[in-house]
Amino acid sequence: MTAPHRAGGRTARSGRHSAGSLEEFHEWWADRHLQGRFHVEQIPFSELDSWSFEADTGNLAHVSGRFFTIEGLQVRDNGRDIWSQPIINQPEIGILGIIVKEFDGVLHCLMQAKMEPGNINTLQLSPTVQATRSNYTQVHRGMSTRYLEYFIGPGRGQILVDVLQSEQGAWFWRKRNRNMVVLVTDDIPPHDDYRWLSLEQIRELNHSDHLINMDARTVLSCMPFPLPDESQLPTGDPFRDALIRSCQYQQDGVETRHTSGEILSWFTEAKTRCHWTARLTPLAKVSGWTRDDVEIADEHRQHFRIVAVSVEAGTREVQRWTQPLLFPRGEGRAVFIVRIIDGVLHVLVQGRPEYGLMDLVEMAPTVHLLPGTGVSAVEDPFLREVLVSRTATVRYDQVLSEEGGRFYNALTRYQITEVGEEVPLDPPRNYCWMTVRQLMDLLRHGHYLNIEARSLLACLHSLY
Amino acid sequence: MTAPHRAGGRTARSGRHSAGSLEEFHEWWADRHLQGRFHVEQIPFSELDSWSFEADTGNLAHVSGRFFTIEGLQVRDNGRDIWSQPIINQPEIGILGIIVKEFDGVLHCLMQAKMEPGNINTLQLSPTVQATRSNYTQVHRGMSTRYLEYFIGPGRGQILVDVLQSEQGAWFWRKRNRNMVVLVTDDIPPHDDYRWLSLEQIRELNHSDHLINMDARTVLSCMPFPLPDESQLPTGDPFRDALIRSCQYQQDGVETRHTSGEILSWFTEAKTRCHWTARLTPLAKVSGWTRDDVEIADEHRQHFRIVAVSVEAGTREVQRWTQPLLFPRGEGRAVFIVRIIDGVLHVLVQGRPEYGLMDLVEMAPTVHLLPGTGVSAVEDPFLREVLVSRTATVRYDQVLSEEGGRFYNALTRYQITEVGEEVPLDPPRNYCWMTVRQLMDLLRHGHYLNIEARSLLACLHSLY
Repeated sequence: MTAPHRAGGRTARSGRHSAGSLEEFHEWWADRHLQGRFHVEQIPFSELDSWSFEADTGNLAHVSGRFFTIEGLQVRDNGRDIWSQPIINQPEIGILGIIVKEFDGVLHCLMQAKMEPGNINTLQLSPTVQATRSNYTQVHRGMSTRYLEYFIGPGRGQILVDVLQSEQGAWFWRKRNRNMVVLVTDDIPPHDDYRWLSLEQIRELNHSDHLINMDARTVLSCMPFPLPDESQLPTGDPFRDALIRSCQYQQDGVETRHTSGEILSWFTEAKTRCHWTARLTPLAKVSGWTRDDVEIADEHRQHFRIVAVSVEAGTREVQRWTQPLLFPRGEGRAVFIVRIIDGVLHVLVQGRPEYGLMDLVEMAPTVHLLPGTGVSAVEDPFLREVLVSRTATVRYDQVLSEEGGRFYNALTRYQITEVGEEVPLDPPRNYCWMTVRQLMDLLRHGHYLNIEARSLLACLHSLY
Repeated sequence: MTAPHRAGGRTARSGRHSAGSLEEFHEWWADRHLQGRFHVEQIPFSELDSWSFEADTGNLAHVSGRFFTIEGLQVRDNGRDIWSQPIINQPEIGILGIIVKEFDGVLHCLMQAKMEPGNINTLQLSPTVQATRSNYTQVHRGMSTRYLEYFIGPGRGQILVDVLQSEQGAWFWRKRNRNMVVLVTDDIPPHDDYRWLSLEQIRELNHSDHLINMDARTVLSCMPFPLPDESQLPTGDPFRDALIRSCQYQQDGVETRHTSGEILSWFTEAKTRCHWTARLTPLAKVSGWTRDDVEIADEHRQHFRIVAVSVEAGTREVQRWTQPLLFPRGEGRAVFIVRIIDGVLHVLVQGRPEYGLMDLVEMAPTVHLLPGTGVSAVEDPFLREVLVSRTATVRYDQVLSEEGGRFYNALTRYQITEVGEEVPLDPPRNYCWMTVRQLMDLLRHGHYLNIEARSLLACLHSLY
């Protein structure tokens, strides 16, 4: 599924400044697969160790009161109940952190080969540190978190990115993690499960299915410094030229469809259109969902299930454990529609309400179909047409995984599709044309881009 | 309580470009008092009309399900209940909007003389529009909201400010309102209760107790355009010089104590230190608080009460109504400590967790004592010393009112106190030195400055 315009020559270019070539990466990667012992098995809830359903609420919780709970979500609009579902409640703020360092003047990221029980392919490329607070404060008495000292405490690196960002609003109750990037000058010898990769190599690797994990994508999306500048123009490719211009500031003469003030006002207005309120409720009170020995599922078998798994691992902090996971039905789809407007690539961003978000609405892919939802669910006819079109140019098309520590085989097909005049400059009110730079500026703050939009932005970064 | 350095000559200067002089304002203001009929009386809960305690939850709610409810707040830390209290839940997003227009090249604001039942002095100066969604969609069948059409719909003015900002995290559950400023060129003849005032006149009026209401202060604080520029330097007053420099951008050569990246990281870290979680709970389940015929109060008579009032008004949307109000005990105190660092005024901002905030922590006054709390409650010795010091220079000192539509006689003494080397450049980790411009840049977004910090910023704007 490599996008056609990426073929040829890039791998060699990418390797030029790196601490190792991509060929060496793939050798290391294959070796990591051989070294790791990993076995995941679905089990009945009764075989969960230290997890149980609370008598009064029916919530599924860990005996320590830590990690996360499976609770109920209740949504009301104008005094009426309009929706309820199970939801993962994980109020702790974890750290997703990447250490970066210059080798021969080129920034490299210290990336981790990490096994997660929900990964379809066991091993994916993760941030240097990917740890919940329960993890790194060692609630489950596992090993300490490697390289954590570069992110917290007095000896940490120079902070380049440090922002709380949300995760799946459809599945998590107001979850967010601390996305961090720190710059170091120390000599850090990578442990066997870690490897230095240049940003260009990572972008190249993001043209593979299920390789760069969700947590790595969100941190990569928040990095403002590796954006290309105008000195790289022209490239000979009008799409890449427009993309590079999209990364420049408005004051540098780039024509943007909207000012940042207009974008903020559009976003504020999208929130004021939400009249629903969402609350946590006891899982036992969630209607339309039933629990048997092995799963909690909706009556129409349309949404996701909550299941339990047992895990045996040779390279993770704890050797054997059991835990609940959220198991979607089928594959999701997230699409950024992009269009060159006055020579500058613009992304059609959706202001999308999600019941689990902390603040009602975040900026989302132009189209986001949750697993189990088809194109017919898209309300706007012009978007349905783009999705089934044979003439639109698909610039990026890979299936990537969502967080394997909470979701079981949660796959999303991420696409970036270039369109022309068939998609209007004045879209319906819940959409807004924005440049890459405008999105990046908002990513300094939380509550703006949702996790799928950030994933797609990381994919867009791999098209430079 | 007029700050001494403001005496003499300013009133005449202020009037120069205005649609009317301050003398005329005061005549109009006195006349508004004479014209308005307003009577507020505390009543037993049983005499509330259309409000009642719900049988199952004990929550105090309106029969329509709209407006707001009085519910319970439950806070847990590490599995233990650590705090509970009644709290106002008002999920609707209202509009606080000011219309601005140029007269002879000077921006003027259309301000409203507005009566609120909780105001200590009945009438205060309010934004052009101050309306909950229930108000402006006419749930209580009152009059329509005057000038609303300039803020919503196709004919509205040019939007200069449009941002959701939080309100009291100690008393509201995740409340915020839409703060808006729109620029018009139309000729708008002010209704009798409205008047055009220049920003300079408003700043002058903010040196009076209980005149500019909370809703006006928050909107005024978010206006970036009336900041002074460097061309006004030097003024002959080192404090004003430092304040004007504090309004300039870092790229214009102003030395700031921290970069914006450092400030954002400091703020992120403050949130990660919060291990508590807060939830709504039925009011009947709140422990330590009791309800009698006329109030809900805590056992130690230390915090606030929930009471009921009956209101009769001649100039508000509805002629007679009853409603609950939150009634604090005594006066609060909010202080910004400021210091000139390298010629630039810096504000010592506190990262303050509040249980009712949507996102754990917002930037707050250096010191904020809720009503009923004394200086001895301040944990940091250097701050206690400043509060009782006779040598620190008090630059602003007025008692202003909090929102009179939800709170009964809620008064806060707002102070801006200049200090020297006795307050360290490296304060404890929950404080950060910031410039006015840095605060203003953050005010383009929600979730940063809390309502008391925004009030103080509006007060700081009146010291130029």
